[in-house]
Amino acid sequence: MYEGAVQELIDELGRLPGVGPKSAQRIAFHILEADGEDMKRLVNSIVTVKERVKFCTICGNVAEQETCGICRDPRRDPTAICVVEESKDVIAVERTRSFRGKYHVLGGSINPIAGIGPDQLRIRELLSRLSDDEVQEIIIATDPNLEGEATATYLVRMLKTIGIKVTRLASGLPVGGDLEYADEITLGRAFEGRRTVS
Amino acid sequence: MYEGAVQELIDELGRLPGVGPKSAQRIAFHILEADGEDMKRLVNSIVTVKERVKFCTICGNVAEQETCGICRDPRRDPTAICVVEESKDVIAVERTRSFRGKYHVLGGSINPIAGIGPDQLRIRELLSRLSDDEVQEIIIATDPNLEGEATATYLVRMLKTIGIKVTRLASGLPVGGDLEYADEITLGRAFEGRRTVS
Repeated sequence: MYEGAVQELIDELGRLPGVGPKSAQRIAFHILEADGEDMKRLVNSIVTVKERVKFCTICGNVAEQETCGICRDPRRDPTAICVVEESKDVIAVERTRSFRGKYHVLGGSINPIAGIGPDQLRIRELLSRLSDDEVQEIIIATDPNLEGEATATYLVRMLKTIGIKVTRLASGLPVGGDLEYADEITLGRAFEGRRTVS
Repeated sequence: MYEGAVQELIDELGRLPGVGPKSAQRIAFHILEADGEDMKRLVNSIVTVKERVKFCTICGNVAEQETCGICRDPRRDPTAICVVEESKDVIAVERTRSFRGKYHVLGGSINPIAGIGPDQLRIRELLSRLSDDEVQEIIIATDPNLEGEATATYLVRMLKTIGIKVTRLASGLPVGGDLEYADEITLGRAFEGRRTVS
């Protein structure tokens, strides 16, 4: 055990996601030995984020104003909404440059074990965005895991009653991957989703 | 790219040791979504460490006073000094409970490529601790890597001229490890250091 303040810092750092006891210790000593100005910048950026950053009142994405940059952008296609779990997923989709519509961030996925049901997600907010008939397609881009699939199934069932076109991202082999290393579920999905090429 | 403040936080977090771009993003979103009080505690512990924690004027270990807890402790044997590279190494040795002497933290190891020579380490401070003839043994516990070995060799050569007993931690097979997975240098050292058991 270290003397008071150092151990407290190690404990606080160890609560961050993906930071184990060894990394926490390493980061704490880095902070201890680092230039004071660098650490002021780190502290300021934490404080600024907590004070300034909010969530977009329309789509739930991170935003520094009432609404996020994408919701405010008039060049984005308002007829398509891509539904994702988290803000990080918005960035992932944006990087592909293959979608020019808008987003809806659910804030997680259905996970009964963690006590997260549909009511804890921003599903009501999604429905209210569909009331003016402008939206023509909902693209469900939840994670391809158990919780993501459960959330997708729930959304598909609910949106079907409204009569809106709902699509889901394709599952299949990752580009650049090796077929022999693909797990059987992914490979099975790749077969199901096979396309005629000639 | 995220909007201003979030991206700035990701950048700052990415400068911490062992935090890659993905972890930085994950930690940033954790901070964004976390309870305000939890984040206040994190920020306070960083600020406290920077303000309060210093290095012991005797041994160079982290300390909240002029000297560290070990140097102040009258029950520690003042005749033996264990020389380590970093404060973290003090903790590692303390955990073994096999050493009851004092420490000397060099603040790194000799690394010509990084521009760290003997003058950048706390070697002069070590020598001044040997002037009153109280110390009878110096145990060199630098890391068993290239830089640590170079530092140990340098210290051994220097301390020999003073005529003090100098020892070095044993190299050999890690306990609980598999002989077949040991690298050849470690296995070679284990042979060199073999002991008569019957």
